[in-house]
Amino acid sequence: MKVAGRAMRTIWREGAGVFIIDQTLLPHRFATKRLASVADAAHAIRAMEVRGAPLIGVAAAYGMALAIAADASDGAIEDAARLLLATRPTAVNLRWAVEDMRHAVAALPPAARAERAFARAGEIAEEDVAASRAIAAHGLPLIEAALKKKGRGPVEILTHCNAGWLAAVDWGTALAPVYLAHERGIPLHVWVDETRPRNQGASLTAWELGEHGVPHTVIVDNAGGHLMQRGRVDLALVGSDRTTAAGDVANKIGTYLKALAAFDNGVPFYVALPSSSIDWTIADGSQIPIEERDPAEVSEIAGALPDGGLARVRLTPAKSPAANYGFDVTPARLVTAIVTERGSCPASREGLLALFPERRSRLAGE
Amino acid sequence: MKVAGRAMRTIWREGAGVFIIDQTLLPHRFATKRLASVADAAHAIRAMEVRGAPLIGVAAAYGMALAIAADASDGAIEDAARLLLATRPTAVNLRWAVEDMRHAVAALPPAARAERAFARAGEIAEEDVAASRAIAAHGLPLIEAALKKKGRGPVEILTHCNAGWLAAVDWGTALAPVYLAHERGIPLHVWVDETRPRNQGASLTAWELGEHGVPHTVIVDNAGGHLMQRGRVDLALVGSDRTTAAGDVANKIGTYLKALAAFDNGVPFYVALPSSSIDWTIADGSQIPIEERDPAEVSEIAGALPDGGLARVRLTPAKSPAANYGFDVTPARLVTAIVTERGSCPASREGLLALFPERRSRLAGE
Repeated sequence: MKVAGRAMRTIWREGAGVFIIDQTLLPHRFATKRLASVADAAHAIRAMEVRGAPLIGVAAAYGMALAIAADASDGAIEDAARLLLATRPTAVNLRWAVEDMRHAVAALPPAARAERAFARAGEIAEEDVAASRAIAAHGLPLIEAALKKKGRGPVEILTHCNAGWLAAVDWGTALAPVYLAHERGIPLHVWVDETRPRNQGASLTAWELGEHGVPHTVIVDNAGGHLMQRGRVDLALVGSDRTTAAGDVANKIGTYLKALAAFDNGVPFYVALPSSSIDWTIADGSQIPIEERDPAEVSEIAGALPDGGLARVRLTPAKSPAANYGFDVTPARLVTAIVTERGSCPASREGLLALFPERRSRLAGE
Repeated sequence: MKVAGRAMRTIWREGAGVFIIDQTLLPHRFATKRLASVADAAHAIRAMEVRGAPLIGVAAAYGMALAIAADASDGAIEDAARLLLATRPTAVNLRWAVEDMRHAVAALPPAARAERAFARAGEIAEEDVAASRAIAAHGLPLIEAALKKKGRGPVEILTHCNAGWLAAVDWGTALAPVYLAHERGIPLHVWVDETRPRNQGASLTAWELGEHGVPHTVIVDNAGGHLMQRGRVDLALVGSDRTTAAGDVANKIGTYLKALAAFDNGVPFYVALPSSSIDWTIADGSQIPIEERDPAEVSEIAGALPDGGLARVRLTPAKSPAANYGFDVTPARLVTAIVTERGSCPASREGLLALFPERRSRLAGE
């Protein structure tokens, strides 16, 4: 998608290096950064310089490639995998990408591993772009249907957190259909949940929609229910960090509250995701481990001072403790449909298996 | 309640002056301020130096007294009423207090009005304290019941916004039973929603609970649903800015989302309010006007810098618009019970009329 009129991706190879956009500086600064080692990649994931389930997977793949380029021994590859897997416990793509990379080089002699590893990481990135474009195509009819039902534009879409191109390599997941609909001339407007505590909505979703020219308005996370009650939301569209085989959706904390409000007001609630984020090993969403992050993300917030400098300010009394849960689980019963790279389906075991029949035998064999 | 070990109120007369705590500086600074005129009172209400439905009413009453002390003519009283009524459109106590003050002095000659006005404002303040203490007494059994049901402490209570003593003259509404339970030695812990955009939870509720010694943890507004899903909330207890005759509750934006989550998880959802905030003229909550405030409250936030200085930082991209809805309406069907100064009741017309039978004939006569 576009930044200041120029097409960009979130991660790319250039010469011997891997480059990323440092998302911790957005929306106030746009800066790119070179990842020179697996330690750099792990830091980028842990510090959320890169974030979003698909991008975490691709960054982990490149991290594995950087590790293998430095030391292609089995022991070094194990160390790199451990380092990367420890960064973000909820994201299933991370595990998937690390395993894929291990598998890709396992049978090769160490001297041949680095080249294959970078090639495979590049393929994973391209597969992610292809998945995002397919999600865009399969999600577009849902937006067209909302326009038809309403009879006039703009289609009002609520989204939570950032599941745009900044969360993937390009296009994104939840926002992919939005970009495609915008490209097709469908009048639309996006309500952007700011998404406390890290404000990925206010800082990333608003920024990427603004840079690409998509109409949007930032709201606090508290506002979505009221907007739905007053008929100001035609559909909700969010991403997922991990979806169970039964269609329960782990996504950024607060997603569940919006799904409840959508259900209560008859607003369709769609979840867009690449199938790499489906965890076929878990059915019940309550089994998904929920990451607890640094309470300082709740008690402090970063922003731009009037003079343009960046600062962190404390929001809470110095002696008040804070707690910081990263995700919640939206039960499948509240999800109208899941949009994947293979199409849309009901949020259920049967719905997902109809799109991914190759998983049926594997699940049955467990 | 206590500040640094000393009992305080939020508004008081001292000599010829009316004094308030400037709540816009909390939790980072504790400062009091003198209101010298009705313009000062209107500014304090509009700028939210005083806020919370009960306190707004009392501040408006003192504002009327200050106006009358300056000019006791009918015209000046009309002007003062208009000025005050325009400050916060959702709060019904404001209207109630202004009308009460007008009525109190209407029959008196101008020369006798100022004394009566200050006396009446003082009575309104004392009535508010009495109402808060009665709410505490009627809410206490709900906390005791939660402890009994759970079989062990602490009782985990979720609250939204600030309905503590800072929102009233003393004790508060939603937090009044919490303070009383704490005083009685019931082990409890309060989950404090930060309550974006103005963060009354993170800045006021956390501060007042901390100063009084009540265990609490600040969470983002997004977290409450997850905590309820995981069994970490025994009851929710919030205040109300305006409650309809049918029990629909207008309260700080985001309350509706917590009520949905409580309902979905079988968590009791209680609303504590003085009957002065019941709007007997409206049944359906969708008729309550919802205040839209300055979008800068969403796009910027104030906090303390590491050096202790206060600063506002921008959170959103400079070119992204924001919208700022102040309240939402929780339908009566999601409210387990309403706690008033006369007792608890179901959130329904019949429930409220059983506590306030004198309203029955008046409603019937309309």
